[in-house]
Amino acid sequence: MDTIGTHLLVELKACDSKSLNDVSSIERAMHAAASAAGATVVSSQFHNFGPQGVSGVLVLAESHLSVHTWPEHGYAAVDIYTCGPDCEPALAHKLLAEVLKASTVEVLEIKRGLAVATSNDSQGIVSQGIVVGHHSIQHTSLQHTSLQHTPLSVLSDESGESGQGKDRARSRPE
Amino acid sequence: MDTIGTHLLVELKACDSKSLNDVSSIERAMHAAASAAGATVVSSQFHNFGPQGVSGVLVLAESHLSVHTWPEHGYAAVDIYTCGPDCEPALAHKLLAEVLKASTVEVLEIKRGLAVATSNDSQGIVSQGIVVGHHSIQHTSLQHTSLQHTPLSVLSDESGESGQGKDRARSRPE
Repeated sequence: MDTIGTHLLVELKACDSKSLNDVSSIERAMHAAASAAGATVVSSQFHNFGPQGVSGVLVLAESHLSVHTWPEHGYAAVDIYTCGPDCEPALAHKLLAEVLKASTVEVLEIKRGLAVATSNDSQGIVSQGIVVGHHSIQHTSLQHTSLQHTPLSVLSDESGESGQGKDRARSRPE
Repeated sequence: MDTIGTHLLVELKACDSKSLNDVSSIERAMHAAASAAGATVVSSQFHNFGPQGVSGVLVLAESHLSVHTWPEHGYAAVDIYTCGPDCEPALAHKLLAEVLKASTVEVLEIKRGLAVATSNDSQGIVSQGIVVGHHSIQHTSLQHTSLQHTPLSVLSDESGESGQGKDRARSRPE
């Protein structure tokens, strides 16, 4: 099985507070997000905290999808980590940003795994295997807020696929 | 509740293959790792994949702790994401590295949350809130492999604490 993975760390800001505290809606959205990314859900766990806030994680055949929300601050931290070449994790966070009505979305893309290029080149900040590739500020379709875009660096498509085999994601649990 | 969090992305390499496929041992180690970090476990889910490999996630009161293993490659990807000032996530990955007999450990530290400093200064690579602060190669006590250390940048303690309040982690689920 391929160890190469894409891990998106997503900061959703200025979200709708009510949506951030609706654990049922968030769980449905997370399953829809996994499906949108082309991932297979193995198991899920969601919790509503007191006085407010939701945490939830889906274990995927391809790794995991997690969300933690702070309704009082309009903020959610989302992680989408998928291994193998068949998923499109960006589609997952876009769906979650819409459901949570995020005004701004910040994405840090990390390439992980054993075959990630280890040379420091112009296409990414690379060190001993982890590649911090694509740090972008995106605007949802809800509000086109003007933000500074201060990229760390941008991985080209070619770089993003370097060393990536065609192994499938791991099988479902025995 | 404090949105400021420390997220460690940990690459464990040249691990013991048998340990990487022992789901019971990994689940025990993950609970011990959460405890070592000072975190509170809310729920857990662990799976053994076919033909090999383990994925497991603990939802924490402070966010989450996850592991994905590839016994056939001697590799595991660990995430430790804790919010609030009371946890020491580095203690978690050190314990897991020992249990999985990792020869090399690579750590990327990300500061997340709304109050993270947003200026680009000498203490970290900062962009619109996410701080990529401390990328280190560590050697476990098991094998003192000689490795290059190529840091992206290092956050000082002062920078790491900037804007960090004293709110407690979220309460346990209702």
